[in-house]
Amino acid sequence: MSKIVVALGGNALQTKNSAPTAEAQLEVVKQTCERIAELSECGYELAIVHGNGPQVGRILLASETAKEVVPPMPFDVCGAMSQGYIGYHIQQALRYALARRNISYPVVSLVTQMVVEKDDPAFQHPTKPIGAFYTKEEAGKLAETKGYIMKEDAGRGWRRVVASPLPRRIVEIEDVRQLWNNTIVVTCGGGGIPVVENLDGTLTGVAAVIDKDFAAELLAEQMDADVLMILTEVEKVAVNWGKPDQQDLDHLSLALAARYVEEGQFAPGSMLPKVEACMKFVRSNPGKKAIITSLDKAIDALEGKTGTVFTFG
Amino acid sequence: MSKIVVALGGNALQTKNSAPTAEAQLEVVKQTCERIAELSECGYELAIVHGNGPQVGRILLASETAKEVVPPMPFDVCGAMSQGYIGYHIQQALRYALARRNISYPVVSLVTQMVVEKDDPAFQHPTKPIGAFYTKEEAGKLAETKGYIMKEDAGRGWRRVVASPLPRRIVEIEDVRQLWNNTIVVTCGGGGIPVVENLDGTLTGVAAVIDKDFAAELLAEQMDADVLMILTEVEKVAVNWGKPDQQDLDHLSLALAARYVEEGQFAPGSMLPKVEACMKFVRSNPGKKAIITSLDKAIDALEGKTGTVFTFG
Repeated sequence: MSKIVVALGGNALQTKNSAPTAEAQLEVVKQTCERIAELSECGYELAIVHGNGPQVGRILLASETAKEVVPPMPFDVCGAMSQGYIGYHIQQALRYALARRNISYPVVSLVTQMVVEKDDPAFQHPTKPIGAFYTKEEAGKLAETKGYIMKEDAGRGWRRVVASPLPRRIVEIEDVRQLWNNTIVVTCGGGGIPVVENLDGTLTGVAAVIDKDFAAELLAEQMDADVLMILTEVEKVAVNWGKPDQQDLDHLSLALAARYVEEGQFAPGSMLPKVEACMKFVRSNPGKKAIITSLDKAIDALEGKTGTVFTFG
Repeated sequence: MSKIVVALGGNALQTKNSAPTAEAQLEVVKQTCERIAELSECGYELAIVHGNGPQVGRILLASETAKEVVPPMPFDVCGAMSQGYIGYHIQQALRYALARRNISYPVVSLVTQMVVEKDDPAFQHPTKPIGAFYTKEEAGKLAETKGYIMKEDAGRGWRRVVASPLPRRIVEIEDVRQLWNNTIVVTCGGGGIPVVENLDGTLTGVAAVIDKDFAAELLAEQMDADVLMILTEVEKVAVNWGKPDQQDLDHLSLALAARYVEEGQFAPGSMLPKVEACMKFVRSNPGKKAIITSLDKAIDALEGKTGTVFTFG
């Protein structure tokens, strides 16, 4: 049966309409896991990669806010904590959604480190704001004492910015491989905990944000998955988005996708990395496919009825 | 080769002599992992259960301190976050300590839920203080609005207390089983994330503290481990502790251990649960053994040179 890496975005983990509590997240995760369980019921073998942007942001913000009381947590540790937090909810909700369908199937989250390259050009141009807002004076002090790179954020104050380097190696890949055939594995949460490899072979956590779609792509490549499926808010990728001549796309060959990327059809930080991850997957695995669609349409998309399907040719 | 469940206490994870930062924890974990790697080098097959008391306490305290800025985290989620945090450090440090010994062996932490019984008598008498100190007025309001049980804590203020029920079932046990033969698995961190099972089969997280030694015992039982090894600050269990006639014990049969427990020889909340966990293991597995010793003496203890060894007869 087909092996699928499913990438879950923020909307699969938390509503935008209520306070971002853990309890509200769990309710959304339960709904999400009903859809994931349906996929499993169809016989697809799944691994799940989830985003963690809002969650890790709140963990960091709580830690920074409480810094006079509790030593603040480094950002890599905040990422590890978000893997525990979100993974726990997915395990709890997905096991139940499977049990409701008379499927007794293990679900487990692996704490997962992701190696990034020290000399990734992204480290020269950090762009991702994280954590609390500071005054200019506070920002200057943080830059001086901690070496943070601080940027002014649209008139709202100063924030730390970190790099978004490419994921290069999944440290715990052997364990994903061991479990894959008999378990739904939740791994590379938030793109993985970013670490760099030192000359002596040690790994060191770094403050960075790894794109979860690129992490899912790397996982799909390394696990020789049949399909990379990126679930987002829209049923299909579109060109001329939001314009009178918007065109929803059923299929994108690598060549056509490349042309649209060059035209600037996809929003950086939003649809663009998803499209690029899909392109990378089919480029690395001609004959396989990548899909972008919404959570509700996942099964239909796998059956060829909807979604945007990427293929090599 | 022998399969061993190793339970790591607080002193293996954090010094008492420096600020409890994540960075300081990592340095201690690195030292601890050198000892664990030595065990692996000897050929023992290991699973690791770690405590999380100070870590989950700080996560909760930061969350409560920042509650006006970020919605506070429920205690079960704090536990899940501590599994991510501590597991990440152990993975990073232990892989390196193994690599230094030319051992390429996977290490991975599983987010692990632990079922406790709703009607566990511990829930009638919660005893474990968690989180921040409050005034009497604040405590009264928390009791009223959130249903917390609040107790006055030795003149320092009021704190929430939660129950310490017995661990009954490791939800992710199948995954531990799948990985055990080829991986050092870190599981049941902090005793596991406490959940109760509802009539419809759903699991619900609860605010409770599970003893990590009892969790390690349950894991050792269910995995049919050869040895349960509880690592603590002392090389041997003693009777008449701290008195002129203190006697360090090399060996405890179940009968002798029971007699000492009845005499009140072991401190509740400290050595007593460790002794009880060891007794339960050899009672369930006559012919196997349990050991209490210090991290530095682990190998010697396995070779019969030191430590306190529990056997059935």
